[in-house]
Amino acid sequence: MKVGPDPRGLFEYSANKELIVRLKHNADLIQSITELARSKGVKAGNFTAIGALKRARLGYYDQGSHEYREMKIDSPHEIASCIGNVSLKDGEPFIHAHVVLADEKGDTKAGHLFEGTVFAAEVHLRQLEGPRLERKYDEVTGLSLWNME
Amino acid sequence: MKVGPDPRGLFEYSANKELIVRLKHNADLIQSITELARSKGVKAGNFTAIGALKRARLGYYDQGSHEYREMKIDSPHEIASCIGNVSLKDGEPFIHAHVVLADEKGDTKAGHLFEGTVFAAEVHLRQLEGPRLERKYDEVTGLSLWNME
Amino acid sequence: MKVGPDPRGLFEYSANKELIVRLKHNADLIQSITELARSKGVKAGNFTAIGALKRARLGYYDQGSHEYREMKIDSPHEIASCIGNVSLKDGEPFIHAHVVLADEKGDTKAGHLFEGTVFAAEVHLRQLEGPRLERKYDEVTGLSLWNME
Repeated sequence: MKVGPDPRGLFEYSANKELIVRLKHNADLIQSITELARSKGVKAGNFTAIGALKRARLGYYDQGSHEYREMKIDSPHEIASCIGNVSLKDGEPFIHAHVVLADEKGDTKAGHLFEGTVFAAEVHLRQLEGPRLERKYDEVTGLSLWNME
Repeated sequence: MKVGPDPRGLFEYSANKELIVRLKHNADLIQSITELARSKGVKAGNFTAIGALKRARLGYYDQGSHEYREMKIDSPHEIASCIGNVSLKDGEPFIHAHVVLADEKGDTKAGHLFEGTVFAAEVHLRQLEGPRLERKYDEVTGLSLWNME
Repeated sequence: MKVGPDPRGLFEYSANKELIVRLKHNADLIQSITELARSKGVKAGNFTAIGALKRARLGYYDQGSHEYREMKIDSPHEIASCIGNVSLKDGEPFIHAHVVLADEKGDTKAGHLFEGTVFAAEVHLRQLEGPRLERKYDEVTGLSLWNME
């Protein structure tokens, strides 16, 4: 079995529960899903979300300097798209999510989601059962990526 | 079990059928998925879609005035992303979907999808089995959100 | 059962495996998922991905002339969203994916993904079991769409 030139980056799971969650008004989206994963014992999973945020903090990863540039979004935006996953980092559930936000003209800002204050948000989280999915520092990218060893 | 400060916003499901659908040329995307949910008895679910629209009507929800602002998109756009869910409203299947549309330069318009005339669209709808998922008016946001009581 | 006016565009599946994949640095996203589908025998499925690309080639389908316009993205971008599916074309696994990319200001370019050189990418591919899902030339749109006959 090969996945591109390197076969080690593949993990197989079966779906367990499908969790549908309405996040609390004024909660942080990332923290809320982290707490959800912790409370339900989700160690691997993926999710999508739609809704709206009051404000947010986005990131763009500089592939040269290996540093995140942060962008503050200080006004209300629709969550036009949010795609993310759950895996373990330092043994604890860790959320990785990217979003596309839209303003009152339909114009967009997008990237890695560090923080997002929920106006309303509907999350569908799929809990997966299978091998341990753990993040580890990757020298090539400077990111915490899934451990392939 | 806690989901943020309020545990009542969590619903657990198991996946039932996975429906793959090619929408009809010139049909409305929201109406088509509503009919699909109705005909297949989908009372809870979520979906993604890609494809292209001939035209669309998007919304941005004004978090202050509690009113949608509508935007007409009168030219053909790619559906770069469409994420949505199915739940019940007044006892009937109700579709909530957000999209990111892209024009011939790759520039985007995004938000809540009210209407979208299909050029071509490929939908993946996951039918979920579990508790009743019903929308009800929420005073804080002015939106119809999933009933947490 | 009706899906809009035409019932033939519906296919029912059950979920088989859920594949979580870290794509290889410098690999092409579309080629990697094609190889993954081929190696695991995925003939129908859908996926989401997040991460970052070094460069990409996007497409916008001109609904009038029935030709793709191509756009080169020559700088690093976040994959703010990637939604796609797997079906058969000429009997072989074929990947159809749309993306929203974001630059260092959070500004976006989006559309059909022809090529994308991976900086880092996390893919969740759901393998579906059920009827044969095959693409065939569609005269109305000029696209290869799922065969409804």
